[in-house]
Amino acid sequence: MSKLSELAPSYIRSIAAYQPGKPIADLAREMDLQPEQIVKLASNENPLGVGPKAEAAMHAALTDIARYPDGNSFILRDAVCAKFNVKPDQLIFGNGSNDILELAARAFLTAGDEAIYAQHAFAVYALVTQAVGAKGVVIPAKEYGHDLPAMLAAITAKTRIIFVANPNNPTGTLLPKDELFAFLKAVPSNILVVLDEAYDEYLSDTYKSEAIKWLAEFDNLIISRSFSKAYGLAGLRIGFGVTSTDIADIINRVRQPFNVNSVAQAAAAASLEDDEFVERTRALNQAGMLQITRGLTQLDLDYIPSFGNFVSFRVANTKEVYQKLLQSGVIVRPIAAYEMPEYLRVSIGLYSENEKFLQALKAILSS
Amino acid sequence: MSKLSELAPSYIRSIAAYQPGKPIADLAREMDLQPEQIVKLASNENPLGVGPKAEAAMHAALTDIARYPDGNSFILRDAVCAKFNVKPDQLIFGNGSNDILELAARAFLTAGDEAIYAQHAFAVYALVTQAVGAKGVVIPAKEYGHDLPAMLAAITAKTRIIFVANPNNPTGTLLPKDELFAFLKAVPSNILVVLDEAYDEYLSDTYKSEAIKWLAEFDNLIISRSFSKAYGLAGLRIGFGVTSTDIADIINRVRQPFNVNSVAQAAAAASLEDDEFVERTRALNQAGMLQITRGLTQLDLDYIPSFGNFVSFRVANTKEVYQKLLQSGVIVRPIAAYEMPEYLRVSIGLYSENEKFLQALKAILSS
Repeated sequence: MSKLSELAPSYIRSIAAYQPGKPIADLAREMDLQPEQIVKLASNENPLGVGPKAEAAMHAALTDIARYPDGNSFILRDAVCAKFNVKPDQLIFGNGSNDILELAARAFLTAGDEAIYAQHAFAVYALVTQAVGAKGVVIPAKEYGHDLPAMLAAITAKTRIIFVANPNNPTGTLLPKDELFAFLKAVPSNILVVLDEAYDEYLSDTYKSEAIKWLAEFDNLIISRSFSKAYGLAGLRIGFGVTSTDIADIINRVRQPFNVNSVAQAAAAASLEDDEFVERTRALNQAGMLQITRGLTQLDLDYIPSFGNFVSFRVANTKEVYQKLLQSGVIVRPIAAYEMPEYLRVSIGLYSENEKFLQALKAILSS
Repeated sequence: MSKLSELAPSYIRSIAAYQPGKPIADLAREMDLQPEQIVKLASNENPLGVGPKAEAAMHAALTDIARYPDGNSFILRDAVCAKFNVKPDQLIFGNGSNDILELAARAFLTAGDEAIYAQHAFAVYALVTQAVGAKGVVIPAKEYGHDLPAMLAAITAKTRIIFVANPNNPTGTLLPKDELFAFLKAVPSNILVVLDEAYDEYLSDTYKSEAIKWLAEFDNLIISRSFSKAYGLAGLRIGFGVTSTDIADIINRVRQPFNVNSVAQAAAAASLEDDEFVERTRALNQAGMLQITRGLTQLDLDYIPSFGNFVSFRVANTKEVYQKLLQSGVIVRPIAAYEMPEYLRVSIGLYSENEKFLQALKAILSS
């Protein structure tokens, strides 16, 4: 008999696993370090942790954890509607915004369809496209950002979804609002545009997205948002999509009935009432971004100016530098899988974490 | 233009949403009741809550919740391997065992393939089959249980997966071990058998599954287990699948990298070391099952003898009885969607909860 696994479709068998940032516990085990000695700047997490309101809500949610979660996320839905001025049936809640991206692909892509996304864009677009047997059409980046005119030009009769990351991870590039709006105008209304705004909270007021307002104009737009970044809830897995009621209805049909756990629902709802924490997070990130980019400049290293909570910098021999940083107890992220083998991505941490990273990097480069 | 949702494949558009048990908070809002006045016996949850070890682990896991979960579930994987004597690469962790069922379908079923499952079997088999455009082949039940010979006879060249629930929900039926083993022997080795054992912990030693041992013989077997029932972790969403390394490798390719949250991982690992709590849960369930089935008998109601933590009973006018129970603050589960419109399913609760249910039912039936 042939191997049983060969019964899975070839597009499933050829999926390459996502490469996550190395967990602190793994490095501690491997290098026999204490977790406290390790600085992880590898997964764009919030170095401040979670806000006090979310913190209290999480603990409270544990008191009734033997109950199934509310499959309709009633309280969280209410909170999102109030905060973003949308209607309840425009929303889809996900087990992280990864879930939203996957659900959109599962609901609208079938084998042979095409999904368009940019070179260097978030890896999950390719994964969810491949997992349904659809074809990923990768459009070369322009100065590390999305080339929107080229993405438009790539549309064919088979195109069903276009993924747009704004800001993009791992490059940190941001599309000007007017260009993005013109792009949405130009995309045929029978193609879904998935606009991934996981890093929107890091933008200053001038740059912050207005895409939720644009939903009035574009029924084919779905905006995905995350609580894993500025809200500091990565470990709980919670994100949401906001779109037309028509699209939300379809996507909710493929959603697992209890895809979002109770603790995540409670924490996310509470965190939406904690603007102060998000503002503190943004301010810390801004200061840390300056600290790190100045440090990189002093080390004569190029970096891609970033609108997120991370920055990708160019260094000779990334593999060696990555390993030596690990030996120094600093975890950053190699991004060769993003066709950027000459770059490493570092997340913005606390002042002391950023300093430890810069000092370690300096020592490695001068040795 | 046609409605945008019509761009989704017809099999997606025709998915009917899963009908969950009514949450306590919903009933409280609708009937203006205090949550404390409500008894929910609708979702096969553990009335004892969670065990002390899991409780402590959950709270501890919240301290670092801004970090992404360990995508490899290292600590939990270790705990499962030790408990069930399996190898690390035989395991798939899921956002509830629902996730395991869905991942198996997504990895091995494509449009046009067939999946076989029994009438009255757990609703999610049909949902995950339909969501990939495959055809569900429903085999009529035999005395509310799986008719294994008929399921074998239904195999065609298109069959890729057979779902078996043991015990089954919502009927509570259990397959004799020798019949199940003979069935596995008879299933062609190129068809995946997904054996759903979400309720195994409620079985006494005589009946408890030995299927994990059978993995040595059957590479095409996946056993799915849940922490939502006897372990009391429904709100956190955690389950796992154990199978051959070959199958696990394929299924893990479609798994979202961070599909299991950190709190669930920690709680599940700790709960595996708490045999005392599971034993207490089983004993309470046994006593409650006696209490409820005796009560039903006294009310002259038929029920299906159950090996789970729930029992389905037959009553005239289920819709009216269900509604009147709600008005009395008791939530049970209508199972018309399982082709059992003449039945209600009640989960086994605490002594006082069971008593409240029986008294309310008695009052309704005698009014």
